[in-house]
Amino acid sequence: MQTVASLLQAHRSGSQSPADTVRAVYARIAVHDDPAMFITLRAEADVLAEAQALAAVGDTGLPLYGIPVAVKDNIDVAGVPTTCACPAFAYVPERDATAVARLKAAGALIIGKTNLDQFATGLVGVRSPYGIPRNAFNPTLVPGGSSSGSATAVAAGIVPVSLGTDTAGSGRVPAMLNNIVGLKPSLGLVPNTGLVPACRTLDCISVFALTVDDAMAVLKVIAGPDAEDPFSRALPLGPLTQAPAAPVLGVLKPAQREFFGDTDAAAAYREALARFSTLGAVLKEIDFAPFAETARLLYEGPWVAERWIVAEKLLTTDPEAMHPVTRAITEPGGKASAADAFRAMYKLRALRARVEPVFAEIDALLLPTAPTAYTVDEVLADPIRLNSRNGTYTNFVNLMDLCGIAVPATIAPTGMPYGITLLAPAGRDAQMAALGRAFIATASLPLGASHAPPPPPAPLPAPVESGRLDICVFGAHLSGMALNGDLKAMGGRFIRAAATAPVYRMKLLPGGTPRPGVVRVQENGAALEGEIWSLPFDGVGQLMATIPAPLGLGQVELADGTRVTGFLAEAAGVDGSEDITAHGGFRAYVNAPATV
Amino acid sequence: MQTVASLLQAHRSGSQSPADTVRAVYARIAVHDDPAMFITLRAEADVLAEAQALAAVGDTGLPLYGIPVAVKDNIDVAGVPTTCACPAFAYVPERDATAVARLKAAGALIIGKTNLDQFATGLVGVRSPYGIPRNAFNPTLVPGGSSSGSATAVAAGIVPVSLGTDTAGSGRVPAMLNNIVGLKPSLGLVPNTGLVPACRTLDCISVFALTVDDAMAVLKVIAGPDAEDPFSRALPLGPLTQAPAAPVLGVLKPAQREFFGDTDAAAAYREALARFSTLGAVLKEIDFAPFAETARLLYEGPWVAERWIVAEKLLTTDPEAMHPVTRAITEPGGKASAADAFRAMYKLRALRARVEPVFAEIDALLLPTAPTAYTVDEVLADPIRLNSRNGTYTNFVNLMDLCGIAVPATIAPTGMPYGITLLAPAGRDAQMAALGRAFIATASLPLGASHAPPPPPAPLPAPVESGRLDICVFGAHLSGMALNGDLKAMGGRFIRAAATAPVYRMKLLPGGTPRPGVVRVQENGAALEGEIWSLPFDGVGQLMATIPAPLGLGQVELADGTRVTGFLAEAAGVDGSEDITAHGGFRAYVNAPATV
Repeated sequence: MQTVASLLQAHRSGSQSPADTVRAVYARIAVHDDPAMFITLRAEADVLAEAQALAAVGDTGLPLYGIPVAVKDNIDVAGVPTTCACPAFAYVPERDATAVARLKAAGALIIGKTNLDQFATGLVGVRSPYGIPRNAFNPTLVPGGSSSGSATAVAAGIVPVSLGTDTAGSGRVPAMLNNIVGLKPSLGLVPNTGLVPACRTLDCISVFALTVDDAMAVLKVIAGPDAEDPFSRALPLGPLTQAPAAPVLGVLKPAQREFFGDTDAAAAYREALARFSTLGAVLKEIDFAPFAETARLLYEGPWVAERWIVAEKLLTTDPEAMHPVTRAITEPGGKASAADAFRAMYKLRALRARVEPVFAEIDALLLPTAPTAYTVDEVLADPIRLNSRNGTYTNFVNLMDLCGIAVPATIAPTGMPYGITLLAPAGRDAQMAALGRAFIATASLPLGASHAPPPPPAPLPAPVESGRLDICVFGAHLSGMALNGDLKAMGGRFIRAAATAPVYRMKLLPGGTPRPGVVRVQENGAALEGEIWSLPFDGVGQLMATIPAPLGLGQVELADGTRVTGFLAEAAGVDGSEDITAHGGFRAYVNAPATV
Repeated sequence: MQTVASLLQAHRSGSQSPADTVRAVYARIAVHDDPAMFITLRAEADVLAEAQALAAVGDTGLPLYGIPVAVKDNIDVAGVPTTCACPAFAYVPERDATAVARLKAAGALIIGKTNLDQFATGLVGVRSPYGIPRNAFNPTLVPGGSSSGSATAVAAGIVPVSLGTDTAGSGRVPAMLNNIVGLKPSLGLVPNTGLVPACRTLDCISVFALTVDDAMAVLKVIAGPDAEDPFSRALPLGPLTQAPAAPVLGVLKPAQREFFGDTDAAAAYREALARFSTLGAVLKEIDFAPFAETARLLYEGPWVAERWIVAEKLLTTDPEAMHPVTRAITEPGGKASAADAFRAMYKLRALRARVEPVFAEIDALLLPTAPTAYTVDEVLADPIRLNSRNGTYTNFVNLMDLCGIAVPATIAPTGMPYGITLLAPAGRDAQMAALGRAFIATASLPLGASHAPPPPPAPLPAPVESGRLDICVFGAHLSGMALNGDLKAMGGRFIRAAATAPVYRMKLLPGGTPRPGVVRVQENGAALEGEIWSLPFDGVGQLMATIPAPLGLGQVELADGTRVTGFLAEAAGVDGSEDITAHGGFRAYVNAPATV
């Protein structure tokens, strides 16, 4: 299996030309012989001409020099029809989608447009008049959807990378079912200009690849704001680095693990947790209930109205032209009221508020990508219910504005592929990729549908946790106290409770509101309780700008003898002030009964 | 006119007790004699008892010790009916709204619940079955709405501060019409727990006051997240500072100035721009079109469905119980579809994307608060159209997630009050207040409806250059010394040499290389020479990460009495070290001939 990395090396060394690569792609398409994979396959001669034009200019360092890419058929490629798997909807765009234009500018060659669940509605890959793409890894299984063709094209070794889209899980579920990587970027990181929306507030263009490095190479090319897409955002996308040494991962409580009776899937998840533990990860059980509740909002709530907006004209003029299942799902969207929409948004806001503290305490959420893998026959017999089950661990993700990556975890003795997904709030795409990459390296699964071993991972820079500083707080910045919100607004993350070395005293600062000042003393010192919060450097500046005399930031000695930046008071500023050291900390002081 | 500041001083000095203040409030209510101001006025004896209970505990530094406050009657006060100016809707809450609870905890005394445009729908103050509050400044004018009673209560000198709410301008338009200050916080800065929503995604509790200082004193008390309100946010609220020296203000192009024929209003705006110029402001004409388009979305778009949700039960069971104008506005909200709602959100998103670059280039948007002032008779004759005109410069503000403050600008010879509003993206509340405060000081308008001159402005700290912090260095970070290059690498810019107040001593830190540590002392202090460097916030974090014990950053008092962040040492860390204070600074010490 050729990867982006191996193809680039071949093109750059001259051992294989981009034209050779194109010929190999079309030869592989012929051998693989799946008429349902592409809705429009471009003529080999046309792509070959582009490859030769590229080679005529030579290798100018383009990051995707001669890399063949397949594009899901709800994303515009100029001059090639966009169908959304609905012939009656088809049009020929004059312009490339922004993501496609960026791919081309980076040297990529677009091979064709891939099949999908009609209007990107579905997680199964069987809802298309263009047929059911064959699952490349295990042909009895559904290919997964809605990005069915893009996922199978990568798994089958036809292209090393492809574009999908992901509203409810369409960029992740097919990745698991085809044993490949599915990178779902933060909403707005990749512009949606030239994408036919599913739910416009929740859509994003995603990347399928054989390796995390390849997926990140593509993301790097297509990421960045676009003035034409008001939903695009300027989000940081750092470099791919090594994973942190001891990431804290939120995992499902055993009672909340739902695999619909698939014991192999349950075992695969347990094994994934164990493998992360060997990497040094700290596993922390979280409450999945608010996530599950959010997942239900997506199809039960008014967001279906967004799908209805896209299909409105068709539903009005030619409803029979739609796939019956897609139509059954979409039609109710026209009946929802604005009041329903606002009520659902209130509910979502409350659910997001419930999970915010969860993400303050973990580096990533670690979930199964899908609870189980269904066969084509099973899904055709029960199309909506089994499709919904596929979204158990994906539907809530865009509603909660998370980013994530789905990576292969296990191939069960039955031949079923299982995967896990790492998720975090938007803007942490590279960190999720780093975790996924480290996880993959703990096993040696073949690439996609091949028997090819994974390439040896390239060396990477150390994780950038530099850029942050731990700060020990003792007063109103403690969790739940008056200034704690300020810390969070500055990007603060709770690390742990901490006690100082027994060399400090705590005084009350002059002025109305009780505020403590911690001062190091030569004798009669005591240990004091505080909390360590991690702040980005920028937040340290923001914080410093708010600190009044006699407080400041110095080096606090902790009980274990290490030092950490923390709040200290000038000794001269608290001379003669009330000493509250005996309480052992400010929280205990505040909670103590008043003694008059 | 008593302000929060003058009342606090009186209560703290003992020249006037909180009970005296309460008696004065009720005496003033009797003299002012406006039966439409309060919907529920609490019994004087009850408030008096609270004042006496407060005084019995004594002045413990509560920031609103004994300050009387009026609360708009859509915000819960435990045990007092909440009516929203709709008797059929009324209920008696068991709990205080979070903002009210915070006011009480800060020592404020709630006098009563004020009249409003029913369900906070309106900008005029004439849509209430409880009558039309008399405009306290000019009785021919409408009081403004929807926070009519809260604004007139402050202007009339009954209370120095009151709570209003602001969805479309209800916290700003009445401020202008009554010649007072209307502070509209960032959405989510003040929790809405216990507020009857108008549009739940766009509501905020606002503050009316006679001075900017008073408004900020109240905001400081009521701001901060609340776990019970998922719409509340952790936003920074810095201290009120001086305005920056040369703020860039976005102003209306002459062709886009709309005053509906009111030439005095036009002149007032021109005069306001001129006064800002004298303050050093740089005026930059912006395109108001996207703001105007957003304003129209509010009442023409699906957000009315949020108002409908609040009134749904009433509209179903007893529609005649609603004010006819309010009903006419609210009823269509029940007919809007979810698709309409999403389409409007797409449009809003696009409009926000258009104004984002505008705010990147200005410190604030400077607009008229309202285009003109209408009389009661005019509004009653044309209730919806003239109400809409009042929102010309306010309706878009919460849709665009801005914060702002409305302040008095001019009293025309006709007796009409005109005002301006300063607006910026959420989180810059204190900066908008600083600009408003500086503007007010360029004229000498009376307070509210009185003839009282404004109080002399209290001294304030220098403005925080957004994103940068000045740092006073004393040792190896000085120009030309060993660590000065580090400062520059962190983005440091030399500002000036500086001397401290004569309250410090300089010691040599333990260890090999001579390094100074500056410590504040109670006696025998001296002035020390240092340098002030400006660092970006990010650089402050980088710097902090390199500072070893016993050094840290605190607040250094300079010779002119101001304070700046700077290097200080822990007293305990330099006890017994060599004292080099006599040199006056580290550079002089280094350059002094060695004495062996």
